[in-house]
Amino acid sequence: MLETEITNYDCIVVGSGLSGLIAARNLQRAGHQILVLEAQDRIGGRMYGQQIAPNQYIDFGGQWVGPTQDRFLALLDEYKIPRFPSPLEGKTVFLYNGHRSEFNGFFQGFAEGERPEISQEEWDDAIQAWHRFEELSQSLPLEHPGREPEHKRLDAQTFAQWIGENTKTDFGHWYFSYMVRAVGFLGPAEPGEVSLLHVLWGNRCASQSEHPEAELIHGGAGQIPGVIAAELGNQIQINEPVVKISQDQVGVEVTTGQNSYKAQFVIVAMPPYLSGRINYDPPLPATRQQLTQRFPMGTLAKILISYESPFWREKGLAGVGMGNSQWIELFADSSDPRSGKGVIATFVMGDHYHHWQVLTEPERRSAILSDLAAYLGDQALLPTTFDVLDWPANPWVGGGYAAFLPPGVWTNFGDAIATPVGRIHWAGTEIAERWPGFFDGAVRTGEAAAAAVIGRLSGE
Amino acid sequence: MLETEITNYDCIVVGSGLSGLIAARNLQRAGHQILVLEAQDRIGGRMYGQQIAPNQYIDFGGQWVGPTQDRFLALLDEYKIPRFPSPLEGKTVFLYNGHRSEFNGFFQGFAEGERPEISQEEWDDAIQAWHRFEELSQSLPLEHPGREPEHKRLDAQTFAQWIGENTKTDFGHWYFSYMVRAVGFLGPAEPGEVSLLHVLWGNRCASQSEHPEAELIHGGAGQIPGVIAAELGNQIQINEPVVKISQDQVGVEVTTGQNSYKAQFVIVAMPPYLSGRINYDPPLPATRQQLTQRFPMGTLAKILISYESPFWREKGLAGVGMGNSQWIELFADSSDPRSGKGVIATFVMGDHYHHWQVLTEPERRSAILSDLAAYLGDQALLPTTFDVLDWPANPWVGGGYAAFLPPGVWTNFGDAIATPVGRIHWAGTEIAERWPGFFDGAVRTGEAAAAAVIGRLSGE
Repeated sequence: MLETEITNYDCIVVGSGLSGLIAARNLQRAGHQILVLEAQDRIGGRMYGQQIAPNQYIDFGGQWVGPTQDRFLALLDEYKIPRFPSPLEGKTVFLYNGHRSEFNGFFQGFAEGERPEISQEEWDDAIQAWHRFEELSQSLPLEHPGREPEHKRLDAQTFAQWIGENTKTDFGHWYFSYMVRAVGFLGPAEPGEVSLLHVLWGNRCASQSEHPEAELIHGGAGQIPGVIAAELGNQIQINEPVVKISQDQVGVEVTTGQNSYKAQFVIVAMPPYLSGRINYDPPLPATRQQLTQRFPMGTLAKILISYESPFWREKGLAGVGMGNSQWIELFADSSDPRSGKGVIATFVMGDHYHHWQVLTEPERRSAILSDLAAYLGDQALLPTTFDVLDWPANPWVGGGYAAFLPPGVWTNFGDAIATPVGRIHWAGTEIAERWPGFFDGAVRTGEAAAAAVIGRLSGE
Repeated sequence: MLETEITNYDCIVVGSGLSGLIAARNLQRAGHQILVLEAQDRIGGRMYGQQIAPNQYIDFGGQWVGPTQDRFLALLDEYKIPRFPSPLEGKTVFLYNGHRSEFNGFFQGFAEGERPEISQEEWDDAIQAWHRFEELSQSLPLEHPGREPEHKRLDAQTFAQWIGENTKTDFGHWYFSYMVRAVGFLGPAEPGEVSLLHVLWGNRCASQSEHPEAELIHGGAGQIPGVIAAELGNQIQINEPVVKISQDQVGVEVTTGQNSYKAQFVIVAMPPYLSGRINYDPPLPATRQQLTQRFPMGTLAKILISYESPFWREKGLAGVGMGNSQWIELFADSSDPRSGKGVIATFVMGDHYHHWQVLTEPERRSAILSDLAAYLGDQALLPTTFDVLDWPANPWVGGGYAAFLPPGVWTNFGDAIATPVGRIHWAGTEIAERWPGFFDGAVRTGEAAAAAVIGRLSGE
């Protein structure tokens, strides 16, 4: 296949999301020649944002960071990117079955502070079921699940089945549905499409009780790809979707629509389903091929809505809310205190997304704003900016926040998730064993892939 | 995007499996200029076989046909391809928990003849559960499911859960697991990875009680692609994987690694997940994109084993068996009476496949033959030929027999399965509403796609 033994690069990285950029940077710092190939017309993948006002940035992808996300925190510290606490002062709004209330507390799996305005019986149902869920979750290993016989049983059912068997009230049922749809334990999913084992393990290795949304980033997370890319110089090609990866004993050849590049190794840093869209010669092992058919992205669009000021604070509200209204189940205050502006981040997810995405653009906007007004009052109807990133419509990402595993995949195909195939290594937040689906997981897999390739390069 | 308005073809068909060939043929018969593009180095997709002895052919893909498969039967009649009854005379072998027995009967969902050597209690458990399954299945529509509110509930659980709740004995449990793994109701699946709704609907539109394996084809099904292709002349390009499909108001442009072709319409005739590997400009609707992330192929390899003669008949056996032995859960006699040879077709599926595919080639062969010997006696250890097609390892098919839907997909993404997108129409057995997963479904969707495009061509 390769016509000569000349290798132009030590390693090619496919994908310029956070994991790919970290992998490329670490390889370059170790003195290796690298090239990054990116399909889109911009770098960053799901780490992507823009400035909407002085000192006010919005992130279309991830935006938060929490105290136990060591590797991502180290990255922020290294580049001296400052953070600020997520604005949480004030009451949380709860909108349930059309009834609006406020409470001094918060629930996202774990619950803090006051009970929301729901009957004691319903609340106890949710909280008791949550304890059972936690207990089962804590019985799992921190590493990728699927190897224990007991995992088979947990992987053969949907989370919807577990919810049905473990909650007695409508609220209890909704509480868990909301958790998996809005928060997601890795990739967000409808309870009826995700493996129970996947959700349990997600709560084990990326628990909300560790407060992964504790802080926000001055300047937005979207600035980070550019900062790393500056270090890489001109070693990034955008607008070059990789079509084919060939390998033999000598090296790899990576073919795009425009060019062909040779290297000793390649790191494919993208969601697993997307890695399955590349042609491989020789073909990948059967289990890896079938894994990429079974690793869908969550169904989620992110919406950023800005206002002249965080008007909710005058009402004693935190700019955070949750509930079962028609479109919005969760929103959070993303205002940078340096800007004076008010910014709400929210999402349309799962079943809601399907009904929402068939609307016209004005209808979509109006649906979201009137829902938000039900939580925060009519001032919500008059935003300064209204921005949407419809991740499921983006063919180079395919969904958000991240991917999830349907029933039966962990136990039968899980071994293929991170296993290199010859000269091909994998990266991307989805394959992390700690904080998968988060920036921290992306950093970890980028670092791990780079370290593995550096080791092989030095051994040869 | 398109530089000129010159259209070279009326329609390009991507994929030369049965559905693609039928679509191309019908378009050509209607007087249209067509081109078929095929990624592999041969035509036929999963309709593929070879000759192993005079008058004896083996099929690596589908091979059977049943009395209600109208469209496939019409095709065989049109090309005057003769059939013969599947050899079923003699006793069926049943190997369960290491115990071998013979019985004058057969079970594959529906049961015929004698009860196999299993306790009355266990048999009644399986049969009574089957009646409940049938009843629930018959309550579904013949067209694609997912639109009724009740379907949501059925789609939010795995078949494993239904089995657990509806069978009391180990045999009852195995009976249904065997059915979905070996027979598959469309694509074969492990009970713990497939939607209950999918399995119920599969039994509705492609029922084993209609005897879809009643007849075999003299010369093998694998001859058919060549017969149709002969009619198409040199309008088929093999070794040309399609990389990109662009469309605008004027037409489509189909780009392969080597060439670019223009046409008025394109029919993409392949398993849905595989259609998701092509880049589309403009991108496909979000729901279609996410559907192709959620439509995996079954995990199945097919094995054809031939002998000097059908030695089992001397023992009064039919050459058919089922059971829960280590590798083989189902096998069937595929001997052409014209040849005098004996041919057994069998499969390695689901969990069994995962343990089998990590073995060396000699180990794989020895595993299958020793298992078959436990059913048919030691003569099975000395075959004349032993041929395997490892479908999950083939990157241009990705699994066998066909695809299945995990929980939650029918109800949220089902609408996108067959809906054309602009100038792009879809074909392939997976998207059929009658006999999906079978040749008949392939013919139906090929005919339907051709008819739709012919209609649009004549309207312009």
